[in-house]
Amino acid sequence: MSAILLNHINDVKTYIYKWKNENLKIGLVPTMGALHSGHVSLIKKAKSMCDKVVVSVFVNPVQFGPNEDYDKYPRTIEKDKMLCDELDADIVFAPSANEMYGENVKLSNTDLTFVCPPYNYIDCMCGKSRPGHFDGVATVVTKLFNIVQPDYAFFGQKDAQQLYIIKKMVKDLNMNLEIVPCPIVRESDGLALSSRNAYLSADERQCALSISKALFEIERLYNQKITDANILFDSALAILNKNLELEYLEFRNFDTFEKVDKICKNTLAAIAVKIGKTRLIDNIILG
Amino acid sequence: MSAILLNHINDVKTYIYKWKNENLKIGLVPTMGALHSGHVSLIKKAKSMCDKVVVSVFVNPVQFGPNEDYDKYPRTIEKDKMLCDELDADIVFAPSANEMYGENVKLSNTDLTFVCPPYNYIDCMCGKSRPGHFDGVATVVTKLFNIVQPDYAFFGQKDAQQLYIIKKMVKDLNMNLEIVPCPIVRESDGLALSSRNAYLSADERQCALSISKALFEIERLYNQKITDANILFDSALAILNKNLELEYLEFRNFDTFEKVDKICKNTLAAIAVKIGKTRLIDNIILG
Repeated sequence: MSAILLNHINDVKTYIYKWKNENLKIGLVPTMGALHSGHVSLIKKAKSMCDKVVVSVFVNPVQFGPNEDYDKYPRTIEKDKMLCDELDADIVFAPSANEMYGENVKLSNTDLTFVCPPYNYIDCMCGKSRPGHFDGVATVVTKLFNIVQPDYAFFGQKDAQQLYIIKKMVKDLNMNLEIVPCPIVRESDGLALSSRNAYLSADERQCALSISKALFEIERLYNQKITDANILFDSALAILNKNLELEYLEFRNFDTFEKVDKICKNTLAAIAVKIGKTRLIDNIILG
Repeated sequence: MSAILLNHINDVKTYIYKWKNENLKIGLVPTMGALHSGHVSLIKKAKSMCDKVVVSVFVNPVQFGPNEDYDKYPRTIEKDKMLCDELDADIVFAPSANEMYGENVKLSNTDLTFVCPPYNYIDCMCGKSRPGHFDGVATVVTKLFNIVQPDYAFFGQKDAQQLYIIKKMVKDLNMNLEIVPCPIVRESDGLALSSRNAYLSADERQCALSISKALFEIERLYNQKITDANILFDSALAILNKNLELEYLEFRNFDTFEKVDKICKNTLAAIAVKIGKTRLIDNIILG
């Protein structure tokens, strides 16, 4: 089957209206495109749970900081569309920024309504180094939810803080859908899949392998009953390649997102690093 | 017919789910209770356009500043319910603050997701003297929209800035409903209806009459082709009782909300005053 490529909000709404009338379950997989096996797993999960699956492909300008990689973020819509065809997705929704935010509109909170996650949830981890990022994410995700009106929306666990913030938003704003988290997909050598991996040189990629190695070491030690966060932190640090710059490595309760000193079941170990100009994140859930 | 009084979100959602399945048009009239003839006109309008009408009665703590009248705001749920019975509303939704925001949650943007209208729309008029007010309004209205999933929601034109901000929010976030503005309802002597009129002593009420008188004078002069905002401002000022404190009197394009110096069709003349401890607003649309 061929997925329908739509660029306009109203065209999507026409399909959604029809599907709702037929009582079909709708799944949304929000992406920024440059689809990889991580996205494939989300789309497959959506297909398994829903009658109709919408994959949105939108590099959202309002979630990028002024010095971030909005312009050079990979855009591969033809390949993305082909992949969605293969996976039997129903709609690929690929709007322009003008379509999403209007023409001649300043893409800022001076001129646009924003959805703002709680300060305590964004003033840490990725939010700390990316001011405004999660406001932009929550806003575009709200827009996509309202356009597609899905019963289920599928998010990768790799963006653990994003997943947590979206779940909180759905609860706080009484949104009518369920968020389905999907596990991280890795290369055979352990590197977590990310569209940003495309930025890495061969050397940088080699260096990046130490990220997942450090997380696996944390898991190995935790399974040996080592639960002191400081010890686990130091063990991971010893494994991380010296050429990468550690932004954070934190241990948080995956239910409450509170920092923990003593690791127990359902603890998130999350890491962010910079390799050259490329920022990568990864995480693992312990126990 | 008797309206059904519901205090719990899930009970409302059960009815909404049923009505949606029956393809019924749903109208929402969001109120803070203490219903008066202004609300009556909203509910009647809703009844005329929709199959089912939900009136929400919720004094929303997050839209009140620390020194505002949240505690003393009039609460008259029994009377409100009787009025909704008379008007044949289908549901009166009167949740507690705990039901709306959760128990043991700090009612602030540190702990809760907020919907934040554009800064340019709130940094003026009522927003200027009530920091955070419109964030609170947009947030609770979003929650009510998600709970009730109305086809139409009805707002009084008296809160002109609120109406403008809600319409902007619906557009910016692609919400699936239509906002229906309803004209201001006045006492026979011209005073715009407001739940806060209940705070006024007899003397203060007399003094408050000069608010609408000033607006009507603006309208009279405009109809005589006087279009200079400064002249109209001064004429209104001459009529306002000296015992009330003028917060603002502004002329804005009702489509763009931009300030205008030269009045033309569809100009909003909006005023806010304080009489003793009571803050009152009123407005008129010219042309």
